Amino acid sequence: MATTLITGGTVVSATGRAAADVLVDGEKIVAVLEPGSQLLGTDLTASVDTVVDASGKYVIPGGIDAHTHMELPFGGTNASDTFETGTRAAAHGGTTTIIDFAVQTYGQKVMDGLAAWHEKAAGECAIDYGFHQIIGGVDADSLAVMPKLVDEGITSFKLFMAYPGVFYSDDAQILKAMQVSADTGLLTMMHAENGPVIDVLAAQLAEAGKTDPYFHGIARAWEMEEEATHRAIMIARLTGAPLYVVHVSAKQAVEQLAAARDRGQNVFGETCPQYLYLSLEEQLGASSEEWGAFEGAKWVCSTPLRARAEGHQHAMWQGLRTNDLQMVSTDHCPFCMKGQKELGLGDFRKIPNGIGSVEHRMDLMYQGVVTGEITLERWVELTSTTPARMFGLYGQKGVIQPGADADIVVYDPNGHTSIGVNKTHHMNMDHSAWEGYEIDGHVDTVISRGKVVVDGDRYLGSKGDGRFVKRGLTQYLV
Amino acid sequence: MATTLITGGTVVSATGRAAADVLVDGEKIVAVLEPGSQLLGTDLTASVDTVVDASGKYVIPGGIDAHTHMELPFGGTNASDTFETGTRAAAHGGTTTIIDFAVQTYGQKVMDGLAAWHEKAAGECAIDYGFHQIIGGVDADSLAVMPKLVDEGITSFKLFMAYPGVFYSDDAQILKAMQVSADTGLLTMMHAENGPVIDVLAAQLAEAGKTDPYFHGIARAWEMEEEATHRAIMIARLTGAPLYVVHVSAKQAVEQLAAARDRGQNVFGETCPQYLYLSLEEQLGASSEEWGAFEGAKWVCSTPLRARAEGHQHAMWQGLRTNDLQMVSTDHCPFCMKGQKELGLGDFRKIPNGIGSVEHRMDLMYQGVVTGEITLERWVELTSTTPARMFGLYGQKGVIQPGADADIVVYDPNGHTSIGVNKTHHMNMDHSAWEGYEIDGHVDTVISRGKVVVDGDRYLGSKGDGRFVKRGLTQYLV
Amino acid sequence: MATTLITGGTVVSATGRAAADVLVDGEKIVAVLEPGSQLLGTDLTASVDTVVDASGKYVIPGGIDAHTHMELPFGGTNASDTFETGTRAAAHGGTTTIIDFAVQTYGQKVMDGLAAWHEKAAGECAIDYGFHQIIGGVDADSLAVMPKLVDEGITSFKLFMAYPGVFYSDDAQILKAMQVSADTGLLTMMHAENGPVIDVLAAQLAEAGKTDPYFHGIARAWEMEEEATHRAIMIARLTGAPLYVVHVSAKQAVEQLAAARDRGQNVFGETCPQYLYLSLEEQLGASSEEWGAFEGAKWVCSTPLRARAEGHQHAMWQGLRTNDLQMVSTDHCPFCMKGQKELGLGDFRKIPNGIGSVEHRMDLMYQGVVTGEITLERWVELTSTTPARMFGLYGQKGVIQPGADADIVVYDPNGHTSIGVNKTHHMNMDHSAWEGYEIDGHVDTVISRGKVVVDGDRYLGSKGDGRFVKRGLTQYLV
Amino acid sequence: MATTLITGGTVVSATGRAAADVLVDGEKIVAVLEPGSQLLGTDLTASVDTVVDASGKYVIPGGIDAHTHMELPFGGTNASDTFETGTRAAAHGGTTTIIDFAVQTYGQKVMDGLAAWHEKAAGECAIDYGFHQIIGGVDADSLAVMPKLVDEGITSFKLFMAYPGVFYSDDAQILKAMQVSADTGLLTMMHAENGPVIDVLAAQLAEAGKTDPYFHGIARAWEMEEEATHRAIMIARLTGAPLYVVHVSAKQAVEQLAAARDRGQNVFGETCPQYLYLSLEEQLGASSEEWGAFEGAKWVCSTPLRARAEGHQHAMWQGLRTNDLQMVSTDHCPFCMKGQKELGLGDFRKIPNGIGSVEHRMDLMYQGVVTGEITLERWVELTSTTPARMFGLYGQKGVIQPGADADIVVYDPNGHTSIGVNKTHHMNMDHSAWEGYEIDGHVDTVISRGKVVVDGDRYLGSKGDGRFVKRGLTQYLV
Repeated sequence: MATTLITGGTVVSATGRAAADVLVDGEKIVAVLEPGSQLLGTDLTASVDTVVDASGKYVIPGGIDAHTHMELPFGGTNASDTFETGTRAAAHGGTTTIIDFAVQTYGQKVMDGLAAWHEKAAGECAIDYGFHQIIGGVDADSLAVMPKLVDEGITSFKLFMAYPGVFYSDDAQILKAMQVSADTGLLTMMHAENGPVIDVLAAQLAEAGKTDPYFHGIARAWEMEEEATHRAIMIARLTGAPLYVVHVSAKQAVEQLAAARDRGQNVFGETCPQYLYLSLEEQLGASSEEWGAFEGAKWVCSTPLRARAEGHQHAMWQGLRTNDLQMVSTDHCPFCMKGQKELGLGDFRKIPNGIGSVEHRMDLMYQGVVTGEITLERWVELTSTTPARMFGLYGQKGVIQPGADADIVVYDPNGHTSIGVNKTHHMNMDHSAWEGYEIDGHVDTVISRGKVVVDGDRYLGSKGDGRFVKRGLTQYLV
Repeated sequence: MATTLITGGTVVSATGRAAADVLVDGEKIVAVLEPGSQLLGTDLTASVDTVVDASGKYVIPGGIDAHTHMELPFGGTNASDTFETGTRAAAHGGTTTIIDFAVQTYGQKVMDGLAAWHEKAAGECAIDYGFHQIIGGVDADSLAVMPKLVDEGITSFKLFMAYPGVFYSDDAQILKAMQVSADTGLLTMMHAENGPVIDVLAAQLAEAGKTDPYFHGIARAWEMEEEATHRAIMIARLTGAPLYVVHVSAKQAVEQLAAARDRGQNVFGETCPQYLYLSLEEQLGASSEEWGAFEGAKWVCSTPLRARAEGHQHAMWQGLRTNDLQMVSTDHCPFCMKGQKELGLGDFRKIPNGIGSVEHRMDLMYQGVVTGEITLERWVELTSTTPARMFGLYGQKGVIQPGADADIVVYDPNGHTSIGVNKTHHMNMDHSAWEGYEIDGHVDTVISRGKVVVDGDRYLGSKGDGRFVKRGLTQYLV
Repeated sequence: MATTLITGGTVVSATGRAAADVLVDGEKIVAVLEPGSQLLGTDLTASVDTVVDASGKYVIPGGIDAHTHMELPFGGTNASDTFETGTRAAAHGGTTTIIDFAVQTYGQKVMDGLAAWHEKAAGECAIDYGFHQIIGGVDADSLAVMPKLVDEGITSFKLFMAYPGVFYSDDAQILKAMQVSADTGLLTMMHAENGPVIDVLAAQLAEAGKTDPYFHGIARAWEMEEEATHRAIMIARLTGAPLYVVHVSAKQAVEQLAAARDRGQNVFGETCPQYLYLSLEEQLGASSEEWGAFEGAKWVCSTPLRARAEGHQHAMWQGLRTNDLQMVSTDHCPFCMKGQKELGLGDFRKIPNGIGSVEHRMDLMYQGVVTGEITLERWVELTSTTPARMFGLYGQKGVIQPGADADIVVYDPNGHTSIGVNKTHHMNMDHSAWEGYEIDGHVDTVISRGKVVVDGDRYLGSKGDGRFVKRGLTQYLV
Repeated sequence: MATTLITGGTVVSATGRAAADVLVDGEKIVAVLEPGSQLLGTDLTASVDTVVDASGKYVIPGGIDAHTHMELPFGGTNASDTFETGTRAAAHGGTTTIIDFAVQTYGQKVMDGLAAWHEKAAGECAIDYGFHQIIGGVDADSLAVMPKLVDEGITSFKLFMAYPGVFYSDDAQILKAMQVSADTGLLTMMHAENGPVIDVLAAQLAEAGKTDPYFHGIARAWEMEEEATHRAIMIARLTGAPLYVVHVSAKQAVEQLAAARDRGQNVFGETCPQYLYLSLEEQLGASSEEWGAFEGAKWVCSTPLRARAEGHQHAMWQGLRTNDLQMVSTDHCPFCMKGQKELGLGDFRKIPNGIGSVEHRMDLMYQGVVTGEITLERWVELTSTTPARMFGLYGQKGVIQPGADADIVVYDPNGHTSIGVNKTHHMNMDHSAWEGYEIDGHVDTVISRGKVVVDGDRYLGSKGDGRFVKRGLTQYLV
């Protein structure tokens, strides 16, 4: 097997940094060493097959994006990135593992849904991938089969308090699923918005002729995210199950998470780059020659963008600092304007929900280091180490230590990245939600299980490089 | 320089664990490697001078006790452990670094106080040591000299809201010192109890004939710890200075810390083993043939033991889990019953305040792993990694990575430790506050800067092995 | 019209007390006067038809019990008190007005339900009565008709978050009804328990053979009262509607109310005597020769009795003092053990829910004055003045002032009342939930619209004395 | 004695309103009657000496201003209103009772201070007056004499956490005084600002050349009001003493009060019109030809005006609605610009602290009714009923009921009041802090103990009409 030495860089972990070289043998890291390529008299540089010079750069565990939706069927169309295009874009952005969502919907069998997702992904991916399981119909069958997911390496499942008639679980169903979670160690992930109330509000807006994309955010009021977050926390508390709330966007939801965490409950939250940078105000003001006010459709996602003036963005960054939010995922769910988003022309309720960010997460979060929102160590923790611990991958992923998969990113703090559909963009979309964003850093080299798959901006990997990873139970509980 | 390979163990960090060998060259760790002692064909076991077999054991960064008071003058006597006896006891217990407090009192020059402490410690210590600076008199001179402490490697100072006439700083003084803290990066440590109120309460109790040691805890009501904690937080907030509250014992104080942390303030708290295990109820019930109810004097410390029935102990453990408390130190301040504690016979106010625990911290906290209060990783984080980060030692201490000092403890989870004055006790005390405690684990081997100083229960080190460490600024701020 | 002078007593209001005489002319109070029966030279005692000597006694506005269920169909039977028996018992206990609940259930027309209740009550009552409207099915019809309730003098309606399939409204329905509330001024009353979750828990307990009455309280966990309370508050907040939560029993629910009130939201809560005095522990321990452990069935009500050890009772009293709870009603819903409660032998889910207290509320709350839980003024406020203000009766009821209905109780603080089925009990029940309670006071005289209906323990009124009162909009909003 | 009938008005109380006539005989109210001037056949209008026509107007208990400082020595000068001028202005504004502060300063005897204030006030006042006692030096003498104040009708005392060297009490002194409060029922009033910290900040600003009046508010940071409020609450909690915080201006201080009240502690707060209407921003922007930026001096008071942008004003109104603030007093402490305020030209620290508002409180608060901030009933409660209950006057003052002093104001909601130094102003000041304020209502008639002292804008009273009132213990505790 081939050996690689990454030399001269600064290895950054969740707790600190070290000047150290990293030795890779085959797919694994085998040693972290004093820099200088000498070990008990052996000249390592001369002994290895490949030397990667990381001088002046950061050496970090590859990014783990724990929330993606490749090829997701939604609103009569499919998310525009396949596992092939989406994971290749992820690799370009320094992400070496995704955890996508296999889907079961009402009436379907869980294992059938899982099998379908395995089929979609197998042999297609540029990087390693795992699955969470969406349980869109909590019934006797799904409750019975859930414990078996652990053996499949699917150690987390997602429920929805929104989307009645599609993915929605009522409180009785949530209780039952969480009881299974408490018994098995499966981690419950929750889309926490009060869908029944939101759907009434949305219908009232639409009936009142308020149909622009902006009203998507008005209908999905923060009060109903706060409410659902609290409700999920209380049902979890009743059962003893740990809870992971996805795509948190409202400051009041963070307050609910913080309150639960202060009393010692195993409650966690992820936010996404869009809630850190984008806002309802921008969506309101958006306009283009081609689309007019419908331009705002490119930012229609759920939970929605929130009003900057109400302090939500500030609260998200603060939550990341205080560890009331533990992770940043993308909720990558791309749709093109043409043929997809435009389904909602004249009725915001029909706009496919989602933003594509899988390629830009590591960069966008690094920019938070540049602007002083988070520390360098926290960047690594939020994007790789905690995702690994949260979802049962730590040791294999999320850390640079002997025995771990050689998923390594060399990140250049002196580089620069211009985001835009005609610039660094590799996602299968006809626009970018991040058009014009400038990053004071650059993904230099990406190594996936020992293989250099991205070198500068060149893609050196192949479709099928990525393998399915079975995950263990969460390692993050207190 | 001699080389050592620690082989076969499980290396535990703050975020996880790995089966890995650790290679030491001289005083430093030079590599962390895949277990099996092979590296690119080299048989490491054969190449090194010494092999430490850690099979079935944990390999952790040496303990850092950030709060000790060797030889502290207090109440007309001196803490009974010298730097020699105290650090040797610490080494036995798996602690490889202490941070002691140099003392300046009112009217004295800060640099004179620091020099005196250097003199006490130099050439005496079994393990490395650093100093915080007590500022017992905030005046023009001390304010002017404080910034210079950074160059001395003294990057934290402690103020007292208690002990009027001895160490007490009033709020105006605290403000001024914190302003220096905000400007220089010095970390403010605070003894947060409202001393003026407590002293009145204590005097009233004494006048009412309530003179037993138990009343020490009654006088030092939790309300006055909560109050002072809040006050310190608010003054810190006004100045922008980070704040570290020492020896937190009241659950309401933890709530104040949590509230400040939830809003993003850089506020930290340490608790001590006595607040996790011992209680006011036990102190009330204590009695011995020799001392009668004065037996309780051995547990007189400040902040005091709290009522278990009020939930303080539970809150301390919970705070350690929620990271509202970040560290466990000992506040090691030993006094013998004979000749020292007995000064307070007939008046609890005259009992020298302090408990000796420097030897038992790692064991007592490991027992929390055994009982499920904390995870193994959190044990390492609380006792070594965070102390290093908090007080500017990380990289050199607190982590097992190339370039770090080879301060390493091999801990045996299958061993056993019986605590007691005639058992594992090496502290210079005629009693143990921990008499009869049983630990389901044992410190197996202690390596200090590459030298095995404790092997099983044998001390192999020498007086003067330990060196003064200059510390950098805190690395723990968000 | 006849005139009456109540002389020599202490008139107690919500804010204070006064030595004053009260002059009644016909059905109305016409003057409150300096004691001594002289006015500008006129000897009033000689001028009036009747003199009631209230020397040494309290003269208070008649009690208003805003939560009763006479003849309520529930679980296949009917509440055992008719409007005749229930209101007569109320009168004996110093209550001169009840507000009962007219019921609409799913599929039924609201106005039909209201008409049915008018029919049940008309000509039957001993005292005045009003109605709230239960909306058991929020649909287009009920939403359209709700505003018309105001004209009917029905200015409040109740929704249920519990009892799926019976009275339950989902969140979308609650939103719509609250929008009507915000538009019209109708006050939304809420049974705040998460019924879907509770029903699963109850079924699981029953399946596990845990069928005793005690498990009713276990199934209805406080977490699900807290959750529903918070959810109702958030939906109310979204709409701007005021909210009144009925029969609050969990301390955490009070905390939610307090938090909402602290931020200025018009949120109110009522508790009931059972949550102040009775406990889950007593229910667990209950046993009788006749019924065995099923004896606990007499205390099966919803929300359920809570664990005293968890501090709920203390929190209810405290909430009454802090005005986080504004009122005490009874939720009077009596069922006999024989033929009614016993329907649930072998399955607690089939026990008709309810306790009968309408006769004892004024006494039980006065005992809280005796024991120091509340002040004398607060007693009047909680039982009469605030109920009147909350439900749009103030001026006519709830206060002793000119122009008000002469609903007056003379209460004797030197009297005594022994509660029990063979003692003071006038309710149509074969047992008393309050058997053995002793009250250090006694209802001396009860005047309903100028007529003495109770004198000592003699009932002097007639069926049909009581009239329906149309209520105005709530007068309690801030 | 003369009799008066106030007829045709709407009598407003803290809980509601009634169409009622009020009959006064001599100094007392003797009856509240059905309107129409008939009672059992007697034509009252014909029987009384005077008829006051209150048709279309509100009849309310006379205002009680519980916080004034007539002739207060401060900063080398005296408050510009004497008891004569100040109480006459108060009468014009519908206030019929003031509670002023007798002053003891360090080294002085409490009873000497009280005697001095009796001397200043005796025979001078237009309306009734009482005293609180300032304890500027808590020592053995003052602690011993405090219980005797109750007999003097002085049932409340004030301490200062600000003004070191002048009125300041340290925490030990506060503890001791509160212990007396808990034992005797004396109510502790607190000026809650951390003076030692504020004085350092003020000195630093002055040294930096920031000497304009605006910097007074910068130095007195809200953090130090919040801190002191919390500290006072905690010491009160320790002793069991009730606490009344004067002139609350920071929203965070209200939050501290609310938190304490939520847990049932007897903690109360007053705010003043200046914190409801005026702001730091206006003070910053203030300028005049005569005074330049020193114009802002007219609004220098302590606690200071706060930044509107930070939401403090909103929080004060909200606190009044939620009853987390119970009262509105003025802290009337007038100083002229000429010769007084100008002492602080070039150094804001030397500006006498205070604003004159005693004349305008009833009007300014009524304007809050007009704008919808508070209800009409709450207006009466905040300005009269609660002040009476809080300070032991209820029954005699603060309510319209038989036996009460005939202190009555007829307020015209159709009148208008223009505030300004040349308009309605009767205070002895050369400016008005309220210049240009317009009120949509007007004080029509003011009756003080049965005598009409103000009719329209005419003053009909005499110096010395007002008498000292001995107060009982607070009637407001829960």
